[in-house]
Amino acid sequence: MKFGGTSVSNIERIRHVADLVEEECLAGNEVVVVVSAMAGDTDRLIRLAHEVSPEPPEREIDMLLSSGERITSALLAMALTTKGRMSRSFSGRQVGIHTDSTHTKARIEHIESGRLLGALSAGVVPVVAGFQGISPSEDVTTLGRGGSDTTAVALAVALSADRCDIYTDVTGVFTADPNMVPRARKLDRISYEEMLEMAALGAKVLHSRSVEFAMRYRMPLRVLSTFSKDPGTLVTEEDKKMEQMVVSGVTLDRNQAQIVVCDVPDRPGLAATLFRELSDNAVIVDMIVQNVGQDHLTDISFTVPRSEARKTIRIAQEVAKRIGAGEVRSREDISKISIVGVGMRSHSGVAARMFETLASEGINILMISTSEIKISCLIDEKYGELAARVVHQSFGLDRAESGDPVRG
Amino acid sequence: MKFGGTSVSNIERIRHVADLVEEECLAGNEVVVVVSAMAGDTDRLIRLAHEVSPEPPEREIDMLLSSGERITSALLAMALTTKGRMSRSFSGRQVGIHTDSTHTKARIEHIESGRLLGALSAGVVPVVAGFQGISPSEDVTTLGRGGSDTTAVALAVALSADRCDIYTDVTGVFTADPNMVPRARKLDRISYEEMLEMAALGAKVLHSRSVEFAMRYRMPLRVLSTFSKDPGTLVTEEDKKMEQMVVSGVTLDRNQAQIVVCDVPDRPGLAATLFRELSDNAVIVDMIVQNVGQDHLTDISFTVPRSEARKTIRIAQEVAKRIGAGEVRSREDISKISIVGVGMRSHSGVAARMFETLASEGINILMISTSEIKISCLIDEKYGELAARVVHQSFGLDRAESGDPVRG
Repeated sequence: MKFGGTSVSNIERIRHVADLVEEECLAGNEVVVVVSAMAGDTDRLIRLAHEVSPEPPEREIDMLLSSGERITSALLAMALTTKGRMSRSFSGRQVGIHTDSTHTKARIEHIESGRLLGALSAGVVPVVAGFQGISPSEDVTTLGRGGSDTTAVALAVALSADRCDIYTDVTGVFTADPNMVPRARKLDRISYEEMLEMAALGAKVLHSRSVEFAMRYRMPLRVLSTFSKDPGTLVTEEDKKMEQMVVSGVTLDRNQAQIVVCDVPDRPGLAATLFRELSDNAVIVDMIVQNVGQDHLTDISFTVPRSEARKTIRIAQEVAKRIGAGEVRSREDISKISIVGVGMRSHSGVAARMFETLASEGINILMISTSEIKISCLIDEKYGELAARVVHQSFGLDRAESGDPVRG
Repeated sequence: MKFGGTSVSNIERIRHVADLVEEECLAGNEVVVVVSAMAGDTDRLIRLAHEVSPEPPEREIDMLLSSGERITSALLAMALTTKGRMSRSFSGRQVGIHTDSTHTKARIEHIESGRLLGALSAGVVPVVAGFQGISPSEDVTTLGRGGSDTTAVALAVALSADRCDIYTDVTGVFTADPNMVPRARKLDRISYEEMLEMAALGAKVLHSRSVEFAMRYRMPLRVLSTFSKDPGTLVTEEDKKMEQMVVSGVTLDRNQAQIVVCDVPDRPGLAATLFRELSDNAVIVDMIVQNVGQDHLTDISFTVPRSEARKTIRIAQEVAKRIGAGEVRSREDISKISIVGVGMRSHSGVAARMFETLASEGINILMISTSEIKISCLIDEKYGELAARVVHQSFGLDRAESGDPVRG
């Protein structure tokens, strides 16, 4: 059972979480709990770090941020103990979460589950501080935002759990963000692959790395709300019913920045130089488009998470200088709208329908990228919500006023 | 260099601390820094713990509280890095502070200084999270309030440092708390033994365990203010000049509770049973008085820190039942006033003068305890400040309006 930041944001909620854990124990389940930091705590710490330093060292960021989850793990273990349930808090290190050395977004390399198994067999409910591990040099690492989901799935896999329940503040996975698309519907089931695309595309309910992990080890994930009795959404293997839907969801990612390296000499290997350099600096590039221009010069456009924009521009400028390219331009007033669905594999004309829908509203498409089960378009930020609503409706995802939802 | 909670209570102060550390580095010193949690943070965490549980498990308290110092260590390492000084934060575990398993007041058993020495020889300024260590079972322990001082002294000893500087919010050690005794004077030097007594007696400037540690290994301590250029007070070995003063300081401890176990059968070993039981439960008993009464029944009175009163009463009641004693009474409206001075060894009549001074103000003495270099009297709490002022004056400690202080 993993509980996110809003689920443990104050003592009353921590007590409520203790009640939910106790229910599972009374139902005869052995439970391991993973917690995030109290909502707002991580942001407060990040603010302090940026107050003290414009570019704080990442090793120190990890030391700083890892404290938030330790606090909630201790408080929840106290709440459980007070209810008469034996419980103990554990840091990432204490439950043997070994990661690589990439501070602020470390990858889990292996888990020594001995201590957790020992606690379980002693009848103790372990409450693990999510989001953190330990590097080969014994430094504290963190797994990046949403890393507590990854902790939960990784521990579920390491312990051969039956299921990993991710408690959050929404009742499950929706066809679109209901704040943006009021007629969005909750899905009862969704495949790992669709969930993966949706997570990667900005659906905030689950972190993509945790879905990847779950998919690789076929660990069923349940996304449900701490504050409701709704059974949530089961993220599991693809089944035939899912294929009947062309599109399962629409996502809008407002966290993108577009970078354009202008006037790149049109010689083989120059683009590779740029993207190798970015990759070596742990910048994850999303969409890439290369426009062939005049005079054997091309423009290379790509997108990165907005938080990486400064760093990316700096690196791109260095590379541009080295390879004789022109200026580096960037813009952040953009959004990426995407549709996702395993049904696309067996339906044609999906991309065309999406482009037509956007065109009919006068929305210009800046970049396009596709995969087997998703289509993404980069558009002007100001059209983001409108685009999400019309695409959602166009693919028959809107909840009917009453009765059954319309399917594509 | 150890910095207390008020010295790192906000980003501006953390930057100022970084300046002080940088000054020492530029003066050619190799520096290890130890930090407390930001002022108020520890209290906030304790409040959360008590909100979640009336008696939170001590192991969880330690997990909870240790996060405060980790936060400041990371922030200060960032501030130093930003100034261009190589720096890294370390938790208690990371610098090899091994303690016993007594959660919330663990004792340091040994220190593996390898990692710190490595950092120093690489030109890195280590910033260590104070107050914490790791138990044999790899659980986080804390060293009790004021434990960051202990961390600092223990590391200074382990690294064979020349000196341990304790930065606080006062300019040094005073003859009495200046808030209580306006005419208190700052001392330039004080012996370990006097400092030890004063710390044990409630002078808040240094934790007694840290002084003990310093005394045992003859590590010179300097107490000085983060916010002034005053050279502070040097705590060091006794010298002849010190002996000329009968009394070096007056302290008032308002954190005492008096427990009375009534009608204890007057048989050998029964008092031992009680104090053994308290000791096994890690309750530190301070003053003890046994009043022989009628009918072979005695009353045993003793004092404990107020925070231990509830626990102590519970234990005392159990023991009382077992040994056939009567009721257990307690009161918390008491204070302990003490005078300390190595000069007492060579002066007589000191105790008499103290009792006379208190009597002259109509202050009743409830209990008395003495050592070679201190005399303590338990009195009604309401007379505490008055007692401190008159005793301070009576032993010639008052700062003259101008010119030299009067000496005893």
